[in-house]
Order: sequence, then C-alpha cells, then structure tokens
Amino acid sequence: MAAVSEDLHQRVERYRVRVEAALDRFLPSASQPPVRLHEAMRYAVLGPGKRVRPVLCYLTGEAVGVEPVRLDGPAAAIEIIHAYSLVHDDLPAMDDDDLRRGRPTTHRAFDEATAILAGDALQVLAFEILATDPAMVESAAARLAVIRVLAAASGTGGMAGGQAIDLAAVGGRLSLAEVEEMHRRKTGALIEASVLMAADSRPGLPAERRNALARYAAALGLSFQIVDDLLDVEGEADVVGKPVRADAASDKPTFPAMAGVAAAHARVDALCAESLDALGGFGPEADGLRELARYVATRRH
Amino acid sequence: MAAVSEDLHQRVERYRVRVEAALDRFLPSASQPPVRLHEAMRYAVLGPGKRVRPVLCYLTGEAVGVEPVRLDGPAAAIEIIHAYSLVHDDLPAMDDDDLRRGRPTTHRAFDEATAILAGDALQVLAFEILATDPAMVESAAARLAVIRVLAAASGTGGMAGGQAIDLAAVGGRLSLAEVEEMHRRKTGALIEASVLMAADSRPGLPAERRNALARYAAALGLSFQIVDDLLDVEGEADVVGKPVRADAASDKPTFPAMAGVAAAHARVDALCAESLDALGGFGPEADGLRELARYVATRRH
Repeated sequence: MAAVSEDLHQRVERYRVRVEAALDRFLPSASQPPVRLHEAMRYAVLGPGKRVRPVLCYLTGEAVGVEPVRLDGPAAAIEIIHAYSLVHDDLPAMDDDDLRRGRPTTHRAFDEATAILAGDALQVLAFEILATDPAMVESAAARLAVIRVLAAASGTGGMAGGQAIDLAAVGGRLSLAEVEEMHRRKTGALIEASVLMAADSRPGLPAERRNALARYAAALGLSFQIVDDLLDVEGEADVVGKPVRADAASDKPTFPAMAGVAAAHARVDALCAESLDALGGFGPEADGLRELARYVATRRH
Repeated sequence: MAAVSEDLHQRVERYRVRVEAALDRFLPSASQPPVRLHEAMRYAVLGPGKRVRPVLCYLTGEAVGVEPVRLDGPAAAIEIIHAYSLVHDDLPAMDDDDLRRGRPTTHRAFDEATAILAGDALQVLAFEILATDPAMVESAAARLAVIRVLAAASGTGGMAGGQAIDLAAVGGRLSLAEVEEMHRRKTGALIEASVLMAADSRPGLPAERRNALARYAAALGLSFQIVDDLLDVEGEADVVGKPVRADAASDKPTFPAMAGVAAAHARVDALCAESLDALGGFGPEADGLRELARYVATRRH
C-alpha cells in the first residue's frame, strides 16, 4: 500500500489483524464435529486475504464514532459472506477454478459436496453472528437494521443477483449500463453493506450522513471493480497476484473491454472524485475513508 | 389425513393455503431480472408440498396465542430454508437426484449453476423476510429471537451439520445414538425451529411453556424422521409418493435398518407419548399440536 500514508497503512494492518482474530473466534472449531465441514469453513475464510470489506467497515466506524469492538461482528459477517460466495463461485458448475490466491479452491482441497455445504453453513453463520454477538450495538432495532443491510446486499437484489447476471452474460451481449448494474450488485452491494452496517451501528446517525456514506460506498464499489478489471488487462501476474487476461479469455463483459482502457481510467478518476465529494460534510474523522478511496483508484494489485 | 379429526384437517388445509399465498408474495417476481434465478427460486419453493413446518408454526401459534398474520413471515422463512436445502441436497455432488415429488429437481429443470445460486438466494431471503416483514411481532428483541432460532437451526449445529454427518456416514459406521444425533440436526432442528419461532413471537411467554414446546418439538422431529425411514422400508411407492427401499439401496444408516422395524415402531410410539406428555401444562389451545403428533406417528405417506 505505497500510495497511502504510513498512518492509514498501520490502521489498515491493525484492522486486518483484528478481524482475523474475530473470524477465528466466530468460526466453529475444527476439533468439534462435523470436523470436515468445520475444517472446510475455516479453510475458506482464514486463508490469505486483504480483508477490504472489514477494513472499510472499521474505517466507517471512525467516521461515525463507533468503536471497533462494536464492529467485530459486522466486519466478520461481511468477510464470511464474501468467502462463501467465492467458495460457490469457484465450483465446477460455476467458474470451475482450481486455485484461489495460490491455494487449491475449497472444493479441490476438500470435495464438491463439502464445499457446497461449507458455503451454505458460512452464509447462515454470518447472520447468526449478527443476531447474537453481544459486543454489537445494544439497540435491538439497530441490530435489525444491520441484519437488513447484509440480507439485502447478499440476495437477488445484490450479490446473488449479480452473479446470476454474470453467468447469463458470458458471451457478452450486455450494454455498458448493464455491465455497471451487474458490478453494482455483484461487488458493489457488499462494499456498500460494509459501510452501511457500520453506519447503522450508530443509532441516531442523521439520515443525510447515512446517505452521504451510501453515495461514497456506491462510487467506491464500482471503482474497485473497474480497477480489478483494468489490472486484468494491464497488470503483470506477479504484481497482481493472480492470472491476468483471464476475463478476455473467458469472454467476460468488463468495463475496460467494452469502453476501452482510457475510458475506464477516466471513469475510475471520476468515481474517486465522487467518493471524496460525498464525504464533503465530514471532517478529519473520515480521512481514513478518503485515503482508501484514493488508494483503490491507484492500486496496482 | 384420515387419522386426524375433520376440524384439524380443515385448519391444516387453511394454513397450507395461507403459507403458499405468503410464499408467493415474499418470493421475487419471475417478471423481474434476473428472471432465470427468480424462476428457479419460485420453482423450488412453490411446487407441491405438505408444508409440515409452516403448519406446525401456525398450530404452535394457536397454543401460545399468536395470530396467523404474525407468523406468515416465520412460516414462509422455514419453508424457504427447507426448500433451499432440498435444492442443494439434490445436486449431482450431493445425492444426485433427478426427481423430487414427481417433478425434475431444480438443477435438472434449470442447470446446476442456477440451482446453486437459487439455493443461496433462498437462504438469505428467509433471513431477509424475518428482518423485514412488517406484520411480524412488533418487539425488535422478539424478532431477533426468531432470527436466532432459525440461524441456529440451519447452521452447523443444525441442518447443515446434519447433512455433513449424513454425507460422511454413507457406508454406515454410525452408532444408533449417532444416527439419532444426525436426524436431530438434519430434520429435527427445523421442526423444532418451526415451533420455537412461533413461541418467540409471543413476548412474555413463560420459560417453562417454551421449554415444554421445545420438548414436544424434539420428540416430534425425531418421530417424523423415523416414520419417514419406516415408510421407506414398509411402504408402497404409490401410497408414499416417492420411490421406496431407496435408503437400503444407498446403504444409508437409518433407525429401522439398525435397530429393526419393531424397535423403530416402539420408538415412534414412545416419542409420540413424550410429545403429548410435554404438552401436559397446556389446555385445548394445544389440541392441534396433540393431533399433529398422533398423526405423524400413524401416517402412511
């Protein structure tokens, strides 16, 4: 993270360590039966990862004044939803991937049936954490709001719906607006939820603050996805950390492929500006979110 | 349902129609994109079914004084969880079934990727309904309790864990106690949740009433599964409504196969008596639950 200040770098690293401890605590022990299922769940979640969504959740906590301990549940839940979606997306019937971040995918390390079940059990674990973690926001109404955010972001109006559009789109007959809509659901919805779960953990947050954060997150989510697609076009595999030119090979519709690389860069710059503009009403408490938006727009891996 | 009174028969039928209307309302419209995903979700849930779990939820509402309209959300949610579990259990990597209740399974009617996604989207829809349906219990704390019940029943300590034990057990090296534990999780957990979600929709219900209902439901759930296995051994396919002798063919460990048919019948009778005994503190408001326990113990399909 060379493009961000040393201070943010340290906070991001602290939050990453923090959520990994929370995940380890919330996940069922591999010494308890059914052992193989629990091992697969832990394998899918505790492998190497940037933990972008949890970090975003904690940084939003800084902006709205919610202590990290209140956000361990939401931060872990969003990472668990992300992890389950990768387990199912990698299955032979879906993207059929053998490797993820240099390790065998869950169905390769275990077996397909266990991977399907582990994904299912992870999804419900996310909601169980939000319904039970005693350290979360005290207000039951606020906790319900947090649950609603994650449910809406994960379902057919969010991540699962985006994946369905993606499956239907291979071969590429989507318009640019449709590609953006797919990304808004498939990637953007969870990015937005990371921000809004922290916002809703602060009962009494003014509606205009919540709306500003939602605008920030929507622009950030789309920017994040376009940069991902640009790295696939422009990046070197050893820097990006995964195979590049994979989208073109599989004929996936992406913003750079459809609008061109220059237009994609311009769109990322505009989205970054919009993210920063959305935070105009916040003071230095939102500097973490601001730096993250700049980092996402300029990242090389 | 020849073994139950005409009155209960009519109520069961009314509740079945009621939950099917609720399911139709809660499921995303097939005219909205992503159309294929929504079609698969509706196909998986709205096919023919006995709706045992929703009926049990409404009958528990009679016993504790919760109006049906407050239970449409929980009743629909539990049926949706049951439906998603069947979609995933039927997948080629799991039980590899082509037919379910005389219709092609979801992955045969659509495709595997769509079936995986539809199951995923159904699971989260169940939690979204519980977090949002405005007709449910007003108290946010009670609503959270309902969510906790469904989450615990669906995860590794419940249904998903039971399925994992079942997958690991084909070949049959479980003890009778382990088979009961598998059934307790795989089938019993959702049966219990059907009862406890209704109980928790009544804020202020005395703890001993809730415990009595939990005891009733635990005995009912196990009885329900053993009768299912007995029908597989003793039944005729045209009465049972699905292929029989399937468990023996696949070498699945069941109570009748391990303990014998006579011992299984005796166990069912004892469980029925325990269900009725658990309701000792209730008056005629629990007659529906009592008749259901007697029906489950004597059903022939």
